[in-house]
Amino acid sequence: MPETVTAAMLVIGNEILSGRTKDKNLGFLAEQLTAVGIQLSEVRVVRDVEGQVVDAVRALSQSYDYVFTSGGIGPTHDDITADCIAKAFNKPIGINDEAYRRLEQHYAASDLPFNEARQRMARTPVGADLIDNPVSTAPGFIVENVYVMAGVPRIFQAMVLFVLPRLAKGRQMFSRAVHCDLGEGTVAAGLRDIQDRHGDIDIGSYPGFFEGGHDCVLVVRGTDDVVLQQVATEIFEMVASLGGRPEYRDRKN
Amino acid sequence: MPETVTAAMLVIGNEILSGRTKDKNLGFLAEQLTAVGIQLSEVRVVRDVEGQVVDAVRALSQSYDYVFTSGGIGPTHDDITADCIAKAFNKPIGINDEAYRRLEQHYAASDLPFNEARQRMARTPVGADLIDNPVSTAPGFIVENVYVMAGVPRIFQAMVLFVLPRLAKGRQMFSRAVHCDLGEGTVAAGLRDIQDRHGDIDIGSYPGFFEGGHDCVLVVRGTDDVVLQQVATEIFEMVASLGGRPEYRDRKN
Repeated sequence: MPETVTAAMLVIGNEILSGRTKDKNLGFLAEQLTAVGIQLSEVRVVRDVEGQVVDAVRALSQSYDYVFTSGGIGPTHDDITADCIAKAFNKPIGINDEAYRRLEQHYAASDLPFNEARQRMARTPVGADLIDNPVSTAPGFIVENVYVMAGVPRIFQAMVLFVLPRLAKGRQMFSRAVHCDLGEGTVAAGLRDIQDRHGDIDIGSYPGFFEGGHDCVLVVRGTDDVVLQQVATEIFEMVASLGGRPEYRDRKN
Repeated sequence: MPETVTAAMLVIGNEILSGRTKDKNLGFLAEQLTAVGIQLSEVRVVRDVEGQVVDAVRALSQSYDYVFTSGGIGPTHDDITADCIAKAFNKPIGINDEAYRRLEQHYAASDLPFNEARQRMARTPVGADLIDNPVSTAPGFIVENVYVMAGVPRIFQAMVLFVLPRLAKGRQMFSRAVHCDLGEGTVAAGLRDIQDRHGDIDIGSYPGFFEGGHDCVLVVRGTDDVVLQQVATEIFEMVASLGGRPEYRDRKN
């Protein structure tokens, strides 16, 4: 059985931290990785500042099997990701011939000049593999265990789908969920008992609040779906024994 | 003139990293901090794992003026934030009398028992100040420069609005934005020239892609709104000189 495969995400961009842009890439990547059994274990969002990006790349690259970055690979002066990745791995940076060829061909077929700024999008740390960009051609790239992708959600998503089949898969995680119409405080003791009896699965409680009451969703996650079903049943019966009206919910993540 | 005041956010919760829950708190906190001149400089999202939370709290607390956490302060076994904060600062943890009093009063007025699980929500590192929770009473708390808040967006938002007036304010940041109907590669050289002449402001380019073309929003940020207006005008004229039809956009963050 494969080991747990771990991943981190690094979101690069002042616009997320200023609140101007609401990140949509974390949710997408999280769902995709979970679906193939890779555990997204940490996310960092940093500013477009070289020291911050370099430090984060090094820390995450050493701690997790894969690192996925988003943002900062365009043609403008504030796009510093490629340089930061090169610096993080002490590699030289230069024009990637294949990236240059793709961009040259792309702009030859358009009415836009393949000028210096656009040529800049062909720069990668030396020896990087490319990540296809079916939306706007300018590729992402891979250095060691770091996958460098665009921040524009449509391009980010396409790049994730390109790299996903190339990754080592971990143990598939399954989940089951029980909706509970009682407050968390009412089911907490019973839930802890169930968790104590099943150390190999992960039970989470996610409260909701609505006018005049509150409820929660109780989620079990693990690699053995048969055990999960047993535990979900135990939770269902525990909630019912406390006077609640539990309901099984759709399975997702 | 006040110095730059910096902040970090720590999102605690497996449900964000699995993709089940889409975080809504980062965007809200980012907007609120930006509006009062506090620079959100880094965000981390970690799992409900003690070592990960403790390490992140320590690292962020040492690097930034303020740290805001979300998640993990409920009554269930997976809510470990209070214990992690105590551990991060080597403080004992125990029942906070004022928190206990508020919760006792809240549950006395309800038809729910103030049981052991709910009493657990009164635990804080010793000496912590409380953060009011007008939604469901169970308070957040403050230890040194760390503000510990709930993950449920409605409660998180109320807690942010409670603590905001109590924070040291930094230099107010302003922004202006110009929509550009040309691709980033077309304006990149002109934009870099303008950035080079105004080192004290921050110019960002955020591309969009639509069928058959692409555009971008050019955003200038800084503390002197008069200078920002001048720079925005330079950008406007640069885009127009390249054949574009620039438009000023609403100012936000």
